[in-house]
Amino acid sequence: MAVGEQEKRERAVTDAAVASFDETKDERLREIVQSLTRHLHAFARDVRLTQEEWEAGIGFLTRVGHITDDKRQEFILLSDVLGLSMLTVGINAPAEPRATESTVFGPFFVEGAPEVALGGDISRGAKGMPCWVTGTIRDTAGNPVADARIEVWEADEDGFYDVQYDGDRSAGRGRLRSDGDGGYRFWSVRPAAYPIPTDGPVSELMAATDRSVMRPAHVHFKVDAPGHRTLITHIFAAGDPYLDSDAVFGVKESLIVEFAEHRPGTAPDGRVLDTAWSSVEFDIVLEPLS
Amino acid sequence: MAVGEQEKRERAVTDAAVASFDETKDERLREIVQSLTRHLHAFARDVRLTQEEWEAGIGFLTRVGHITDDKRQEFILLSDVLGLSMLTVGINAPAEPRATESTVFGPFFVEGAPEVALGGDISRGAKGMPCWVTGTIRDTAGNPVADARIEVWEADEDGFYDVQYDGDRSAGRGRLRSDGDGGYRFWSVRPAAYPIPTDGPVSELMAATDRSVMRPAHVHFKVDAPGHRTLITHIFAAGDPYLDSDAVFGVKESLIVEFAEHRPGTAPDGRVLDTAWSSVEFDIVLEPLS
Ligand SMILES: [Fe+2]
Ligand SMILES: [Fe+2]
Repeated sequence: MAVGEQEKRERAVTDAAVASFDETKDERLREIVQSLTRHLHAFARDVRLTQEEWEAGIGFLTRVGHITDDKRQEFILLSDVLGLSMLTVGINAPAEPRATESTVFGPFFVEGAPEVALGGDISRGAKGMPCWVTGTIRDTAGNPVADARIEVWEADEDGFYDVQYDGDRSAGRGRLRSDGDGGYRFWSVRPAAYPIPTDGPVSELMAATDRSVMRPAHVHFKVDAPGHRTLITHIFAAGDPYLDSDAVFGVKESLIVEFAEHRPGTAPDGRVLDTAWSSVEFDIVLEPLS
Repeated sequence: MAVGEQEKRERAVTDAAVASFDETKDERLREIVQSLTRHLHAFARDVRLTQEEWEAGIGFLTRVGHITDDKRQEFILLSDVLGLSMLTVGINAPAEPRATESTVFGPFFVEGAPEVALGGDISRGAKGMPCWVTGTIRDTAGNPVADARIEVWEADEDGFYDVQYDGDRSAGRGRLRSDGDGGYRFWSVRPAAYPIPTDGPVSELMAATDRSVMRPAHVHFKVDAPGHRTLITHIFAAGDPYLDSDAVFGVKESLIVEFAEHRPGTAPDGRVLDTAWSSVEFDIVLEPLS
């Protein structure tokens, strides 16, 4: 068959698929599905996708779906390692450059984490060097944001989140509220670099493509306050060897902070520690919604 | 932020994600994942995907994954309604225009369907007007292809495949082999138009985009013979009202055949029917592999 004829036939399929959405009443949905269809078809045509490769793709997505449950979100992980999550964060970045930068949500957020009082300990059994985390939440005009809802979650020193252990363990995560001056403080553990989950199809993809599965050490933050844009971000530990090769492209310069280390002794809140401990300060700036 | 700066930041994410696959040793895999990453990112940028829309997409794929099992393949159905399956068929079409055209595989194929002798009945309880299906399998030079493996499957007169009923029912599907002259023949039921499964996320997408869920009446064929390209196709019933609006874009002119209807009486194989019955002839041409 002539190349022109082949191309014409392929374009006819794409045109028919795009046109099938012409009657979609929801305009935004129509825009999304028609663009998705065009780009998906362009991908298949560009690589000359074989039937076996299409089958492998269907099988891969099926395995991603089957390992996903309410504690394990392999589709988010897939979006993360393809850079789609970070791109979406970038597309929706605050227009306001003074606000704290966002990064990926990640697959390990759990709804309804335990409420912890300011100054309390979110580690609740998570192993690692104790770490005192403090900061202030302000808006872009410098006003403190009182009573902001702060959710934090992190891996333990072995690089695992609570939900990666057997059982119904909840550790290394908590919900707090900022005080009247926008301040927040809590104990946790110093975060560790960790591989993305190595028992699923996404890690198979990383192995097949010779990519590193490591994420540099970080603590996740989600901060909500009425009248402000929700912030989803991490703090990254300065000096981490994986800052330049994050498997999910989440690192931003402004989010790298120094975790200080201290000898055993008395911490700022009066806690007496007989082991070395760490501390980090992270001030957060929220963008007011207009 | 200036538009140029925003675009620069977004491109940097795409470049980093594409570059992360640079060390992939498997060249074909590298080509595929890099192209996929580029097109996926272009889609998200083009539509200015919001965080909520990204979440909706993750949730949608999760539901597609959870409804998929060894008898229900919602990812194939999704690929079908987006035209990706038909495009892949087109990309891999035989170079040989004399060979029988291919169409979509569909989500209802089941491995290990029952072996049926030539002239036997594959309906095995599937409801519908009895239908006598015959044909000859030849190669593009006109030589009969003996002992070809033929797998057929179809919906009953209510538009349901066996696997859509509760229980372990197997009906309306079977495996046969062509005879020494390339001939095949079997009893089944006249196929009916049917909606794609209406209890899953793909049908929700069809409803949300105001698309018809109907497929015109058809019988699926998969034909394998050593030394020949595997053929995956349907025969479509001439006159079906949905031939121009197949939900999965599978119709090709050359695959539309006439299902004749007969009064009660004796069929060509000697079977005596006290009800009206139908017959169809479909000759198949396989492309030899060079
Ligand atoms: Fe994380
Ligand atoms: Fe079908």
